[in-house]
Amino acid sequence: MKFVVIGGDAAGMSAASKAKRNASDLEVTVLEKTGDVSYSACGMPYNIADARREIDDLVVRPAAVFKQKQGIEVLTGYTVEAIDPAGKVVRGTTLRAEPFEFPYDRLLIATGARPIMTDVPGTDLPGVMVLKSLEDGRNIKTTIAQHNVKKAVIIGMGYIGLEMAEALRARQIQVAMVKPGPDLLPWMGRELAEVVRRELDANRVGIHPGQAIDGIESDETGLKVNCADITLDTDLVLMAAGVQPNSELALQAGIAMGAGNAIAVDRGMRTSDNAIYAAGDCADAYHVVTGSKTWIPLALRANRAGWAVADNICGKPVELPGVAGTAVFKAFDLEVARTGLSMAEAVRSGFDIVDMTIESNSRAHAHPGSSAIFVYMLADRKSGRLLGAQMVGREGAAHRINAAAVALHNHMTVEDFVQTDLAYAPPFGPVWDPLLTAANQLLKKL
Amino acid sequence: MKFVVIGGDAAGMSAASKAKRNASDLEVTVLEKTGDVSYSACGMPYNIADARREIDDLVVRPAAVFKQKQGIEVLTGYTVEAIDPAGKVVRGTTLRAEPFEFPYDRLLIATGARPIMTDVPGTDLPGVMVLKSLEDGRNIKTTIAQHNVKKAVIIGMGYIGLEMAEALRARQIQVAMVKPGPDLLPWMGRELAEVVRRELDANRVGIHPGQAIDGIESDETGLKVNCADITLDTDLVLMAAGVQPNSELALQAGIAMGAGNAIAVDRGMRTSDNAIYAAGDCADAYHVVTGSKTWIPLALRANRAGWAVADNICGKPVELPGVAGTAVFKAFDLEVARTGLSMAEAVRSGFDIVDMTIESNSRAHAHPGSSAIFVYMLADRKSGRLLGAQMVGREGAAHRINAAAVALHNHMTVEDFVQTDLAYAPPFGPVWDPLLTAANQLLKKL
Repeated sequence: MKFVVIGGDAAGMSAASKAKRNASDLEVTVLEKTGDVSYSACGMPYNIADARREIDDLVVRPAAVFKQKQGIEVLTGYTVEAIDPAGKVVRGTTLRAEPFEFPYDRLLIATGARPIMTDVPGTDLPGVMVLKSLEDGRNIKTTIAQHNVKKAVIIGMGYIGLEMAEALRARQIQVAMVKPGPDLLPWMGRELAEVVRRELDANRVGIHPGQAIDGIESDETGLKVNCADITLDTDLVLMAAGVQPNSELALQAGIAMGAGNAIAVDRGMRTSDNAIYAAGDCADAYHVVTGSKTWIPLALRANRAGWAVADNICGKPVELPGVAGTAVFKAFDLEVARTGLSMAEAVRSGFDIVDMTIESNSRAHAHPGSSAIFVYMLADRKSGRLLGAQMVGREGAAHRINAAAVALHNHMTVEDFVQTDLAYAPPFGPVWDPLLTAANQLLKKL
Repeated sequence: MKFVVIGGDAAGMSAASKAKRNASDLEVTVLEKTGDVSYSACGMPYNIADARREIDDLVVRPAAVFKQKQGIEVLTGYTVEAIDPAGKVVRGTTLRAEPFEFPYDRLLIATGARPIMTDVPGTDLPGVMVLKSLEDGRNIKTTIAQHNVKKAVIIGMGYIGLEMAEALRARQIQVAMVKPGPDLLPWMGRELAEVVRRELDANRVGIHPGQAIDGIESDETGLKVNCADITLDTDLVLMAAGVQPNSELALQAGIAMGAGNAIAVDRGMRTSDNAIYAAGDCADAYHVVTGSKTWIPLALRANRAGWAVADNICGKPVELPGVAGTAVFKAFDLEVARTGLSMAEAVRSGFDIVDMTIESNSRAHAHPGSSAIFVYMLADRKSGRLLGAQMVGREGAAHRINAAAVALHNHMTVEDFVQTDLAYAPPFGPVWDPLLTAANQLLKKL
């Protein structure tokens, strides 16, 4: 049986590797349009922060090793341009402009996502960059090294924008962030977003929300980002206004689309064509809180979905329950974490919201080194169900969020969550974990 | 209505405070035999570690403040000697040898636990100490300061023993630990216990398991702990061989005993006498994994149980689901955490055990500063249910364990837990959280 995979990052390589482990006689071919496969994309900001590190440190396993060690054909520089579901064949062109075609019995579309390029003029100028592929990371590092970059403007204020703000500040580069929307982190509880804003201020990152971007211009002194009320002079512009799924190939092949213009998949990662699967950032998922489709492109889901495809094509049926939208990022010295629905998402899903923000401590009463930890939590008034939680703090936020994530998978009420037996020792938190304190306070309002 | 509380630490003061908040006309009297109420007992080792800090830093709220601010009568130095359930009265003697008696409508027994004193000769010698009350902590600090303590022997290797080993090393005191049992941490997966042992070695703590203790002697040079094969010269001996519930007062009043010789309570903290409640380390609890009674004396449960008593006597019915046995402690630079059943406990409870130990990393591939993180996980072969998890690592173990604790509250199978959406970012862990990696590996064996 021929298993063809389009895309050689998290979902694609997880599927290819696991499929070959499941069935060694399977012919597995991975078609990757860039020159890189199997790398830690999420690690790029931290690598860029350190001039001494090579971007290739992030490669987990080079393409050649997959062939030698696992018998997987990994072809880099192979861009798929069309899928023919009737003929069960994919067609495209190599980097050397040679046409190719591969027949398949089972096909996985793992084409990922790409940065949203706003339609403002000037995004094609030299020095206007994105960060998605390893090649993008390489370009950013080279540009910083070769062009004596002193100032950068980041368009967008999402995870990648914030991680890159920290990375660029570590390189002694002045950073300004700008976006048209009014809020720094619109999905976050207001008090928590304010804590993040203060951290950015303290690290001298300029924050300019509410600025429509008119265009980017270039002159002999560098780049100019022209916004509604301000003009930002800069050496480098990073477009980090979010990502969108690479689902066009599937759309053109007549495959059904789902949430967020991603490819619709069932719990077994099957698309509307029964020989074709989709996984990773190009595919949608069920949300465990709402039970509805959602599109939340994150690495763990991509890996897990890749494994599920491998199992399903090898006759070991797997159904994934879905995602809780759990995510964490570092913003300078802050850990910022979330799981479940934001207030706006919960309202859109028809819940009657009760929410609560609390401030607690990262260590016990009188324990040295304690810092503030903030929790935002929301629930449904009617059912009492926990719908989401967010945390911000200098320590103890990143891993704590997982307790709330597991609670969401189990549809726990706040009343039940309040009674969970969480760990306590003075160096690690107060007797009542901040999540429990938030839940206790929320319960009083329910 | 008169609400009398015996014992003024976590459970007692939580109950007294919440009861008064619930019903301001309630007459609340707390009878505490020592001179201290409402302090962070768990914080004592960390306070002892620092010569500059006063032990009284650990007092959260002094007795007088409860009277002034909350209208709660807190009487210190009041030792209750008898409960008369028929006459609804408690009797005892004050520190000044004055008899007292208090009638009650509702009584809470929150007498806590005490260190197990083995019946070896010499435990009454000067320099042989325990750590339970704030007065004990005060005595240890005074002894270290006044007697030029250079060497200490800790009898026992539990949480308190290990925390005190770290505290005493911080004071430049040589530490040897000794116990009759063969294993350092018998409840822990073998590889994980070995990681802790290496950490103690690296911090030059002598570990002597398998040493029956024949007695403690004193001469002009100091103390001698005579064991089966060795004799340990020392300036100070800390008895830390575990604790036992202070349940005798209840037993003598004809109240039923439960697990571990603690006072039997139902999910509403009611004893066998319908006017008498028990909470904290003197009372037993249901285990959420087995559904059976257990005795696990820990601070969060004590606080929670105190609140539940307050609500129940004020006509707001609360039933506590029980404990998962979640605990964490610091052993020098290691975070050591557990939840659920140990292998021995699971076998005793009749489960057919499948277990797994894995080594993972605290940060992502190629992220600087990563360290090893070890997970031990066990499940029931028949039902596939997760039964317990343990973690050891230099970072990221303490809070991660809570995800497994919440899974236990929900009776999750390993197959379901594997699919939970846990947080990922390179500074905080690998894509697959170490708990998920352990669960994935365990699933293969199930």
